[in-house]
Amino acid sequence: MPYLTGERHQLPGNRSELADYQPQHFLFALEQGVATITLNRPERKNPLTFDSYAELRDLFRALAYADGVKAVVVTGAGENFCSGGDVHDIIGPLTRLDMPGLLAFTRMTGDLVKAMRACPQPIVAAIDGICAGAGAILALASDIRYGTARSKTAFLFTRVGLAGCDMGACALLPRVIGQGRAAELLYTGRSMNGEEAERWGFFNRLCSPESVLAEARAFAAALAAGPTFAHGMTKKMLQQEWNMGVDEAIEAEAQAQAICMATNDFHRAYHAFVAKEKPQFEGD
Amino acid sequence: MPYLTGERHQLPGNRSELADYQPQHFLFALEQGVATITLNRPERKNPLTFDSYAELRDLFRALAYADGVKAVVVTGAGENFCSGGDVHDIIGPLTRLDMPGLLAFTRMTGDLVKAMRACPQPIVAAIDGICAGAGAILALASDIRYGTARSKTAFLFTRVGLAGCDMGACALLPRVIGQGRAAELLYTGRSMNGEEAERWGFFNRLCSPESVLAEARAFAAALAAGPTFAHGMTKKMLQQEWNMGVDEAIEAEAQAQAICMATNDFHRAYHAFVAKEKPQFEGD
Amino acid sequence: MPYLTGERHQLPGNRSELADYQPQHFLFALEQGVATITLNRPERKNPLTFDSYAELRDLFRALAYADGVKAVVVTGAGENFCSGGDVHDIIGPLTRLDMPGLLAFTRMTGDLVKAMRACPQPIVAAIDGICAGAGAILALASDIRYGTARSKTAFLFTRVGLAGCDMGACALLPRVIGQGRAAELLYTGRSMNGEEAERWGFFNRLCSPESVLAEARAFAAALAAGPTFAHGMTKKMLQQEWNMGVDEAIEAEAQAQAICMATNDFHRAYHAFVAKEKPQFEGD
Repeated sequence: MPYLTGERHQLPGNRSELADYQPQHFLFALEQGVATITLNRPERKNPLTFDSYAELRDLFRALAYADGVKAVVVTGAGENFCSGGDVHDIIGPLTRLDMPGLLAFTRMTGDLVKAMRACPQPIVAAIDGICAGAGAILALASDIRYGTARSKTAFLFTRVGLAGCDMGACALLPRVIGQGRAAELLYTGRSMNGEEAERWGFFNRLCSPESVLAEARAFAAALAAGPTFAHGMTKKMLQQEWNMGVDEAIEAEAQAQAICMATNDFHRAYHAFVAKEKPQFEGD
Repeated sequence: MPYLTGERHQLPGNRSELADYQPQHFLFALEQGVATITLNRPERKNPLTFDSYAELRDLFRALAYADGVKAVVVTGAGENFCSGGDVHDIIGPLTRLDMPGLLAFTRMTGDLVKAMRACPQPIVAAIDGICAGAGAILALASDIRYGTARSKTAFLFTRVGLAGCDMGACALLPRVIGQGRAAELLYTGRSMNGEEAERWGFFNRLCSPESVLAEARAFAAALAAGPTFAHGMTKKMLQQEWNMGVDEAIEAEAQAQAICMATNDFHRAYHAFVAKEKPQFEGD
Repeated sequence: MPYLTGERHQLPGNRSELADYQPQHFLFALEQGVATITLNRPERKNPLTFDSYAELRDLFRALAYADGVKAVVVTGAGENFCSGGDVHDIIGPLTRLDMPGLLAFTRMTGDLVKAMRACPQPIVAAIDGICAGAGAILALASDIRYGTARSKTAFLFTRVGLAGCDMGACALLPRVIGQGRAAELLYTGRSMNGEEAERWGFFNRLCSPESVLAEARAFAAALAAGPTFAHGMTKKMLQQEWNMGVDEAIEAEAQAQAICMATNDFHRAYHAFVAKEKPQFEGD
């Protein structure tokens, strides 16, 4: 298993190579700066395996250096987002691991979330159908979530005898939907339906099943056409200020925004405004 | 007064003894792993006194060692939850205390919240009628809140000339209902009605007055029948990660979940799944 | 420019002087303990300039010592709140500054937010029409927000090629409306309409355009008639506990509330209660 041996997928670190990137365990497409990652075992509702976890982790780590990728869409094939860790491929083997092996696994899955939060590209999840377990975490670790009314998002770790604290859920979920609602979902593993998800702030938009992926892509494309260096700074600071005091966060933003004011995109926006034109951002 | 002398209620630390526990200042019942605590001075809307504060604090501290208690329900007798600190029994005496005495009191009340957050059992509050002052804090310090439309929850410290920062309210309430709504309730002391409470994420469910306690108990019983060791870990990590950075929280969860993967309940769930049966959790 | 030279507006530090305070770049009125600050360039939708930033910062710093001011209302003249930093007066000059100059600017604007959070008076924003860029931050840095359905609040830094991390937005906004909704507004710069703002907890109340300022003032006046020393402690602790652990926050509140229990307002409330009268608070 890759996470035990330290084997690392050799992913490209620049645009031209990533354009040719052919993952083994999911689909990957890059169009006009928007990378679309599609979990693709629809007959099983797109479960994760040891290998797909590791390959996703390595891809998101590589995205930190992939200048040509400006935004990311994560979705699932065949009317479901992701059913989480496969019971046969993951849960079974885990019951036979020793403690160092268990920790190696939980750290690998956590590293995937760390990599999603660390890459500079905003991540947009397009969610239909089942979004469960580690799949719900993939949605939660995204920046923006578009979903459908019929979708079912369940942090169902408790259903397999585990705790709700998986891959950062006890940190992330309360800040998205509030501490009380997060506690209920994490203790019970019950499904949050699409309307609840929108009402509670988990989904940014409710879409029809037919349009959810297209709307997520359009949103990502709009971000990709914007000042992407600045977007990366927004994402970095949302993470960086997570547990800062207010005054420290304000100083951190003073520094971060001063950096952005030294970019060409800031100058482009000003000159476009003066010329009464629409600014063309280039991400530098 | 107990909190000044250091007198400590001698509470049992294991299951069989707590089954016989007879509190002096509220009702206590233990059924199938669910402890129900009922504030019981209905003619005064169940106010708290120095003695009931101290006894509640000692009970929640004892719950940390009470293996036979798997979940807790907190409620009030006679169509009200709790009217908070009694004006005659608490406010009056407080006006005559010196500063060390005042701090001993505020620390004792704070210790009650600390004990509620530290015990491993999820706490479900069943709230009808008046839920005010320290009563509102008891609700807030619970994990899950079921309430009624007619209930009135008021953090009314400001009405007696005090600040909204009581027993952790300025830390806890913003994370449950958002910073802006929390500020309004804490500055004004106004009542939040049941519909607001549900809409803002304070209540997990709106129930009828007739059913709120039964629904809260059923919810607690469902948790008590689940993987309770893991539930305790969920509660611990929701607390532990409160002010961690995201990456540190993810590592903390990797460790916590690895521990849960070494439990029998995790194995039980897997084998039940393979056998197409419903898992029977035992909390170990 | 004042922020570069260190020039400081000489503001009075006590009540009688602040009653005569005549700002150069906005309107100021003090009535019965409620200070109303009105941004007043309605023909431009009340933009901020270098000078108005600096004067606002100095005023909020002076409020920390202004005993006669018990609450603050911030609003804009002519059916708009504030259009943010003026493109000609601010954006243009910024494109010609070196890095130390840029940082001096971002620190000055951040210092305004720090001063708003540090002064003891609760700040109530009355928001109609455009509330954009730094104007949206002024609203966000307030304690309470009353708005109108037709108002448009936009954190539109990204539209000028900058990041969403401006003046503390990445710290403050997620705690008010949730991490997911905040991310969308900060990445896109899109307008949040009045109904969204109320539903998401950004606005505490939706008012008609005709009444929003009067309702905000009435709210501020009610706070000003309350236990204002305690209100200042509520505000301080909401800030202070921002990134504390729960247990540390509870101890901090035990100390803060013990201080409030030593005030005359606490005694006044008790004696009024006993005498079945309405307490008259004096803020000491």
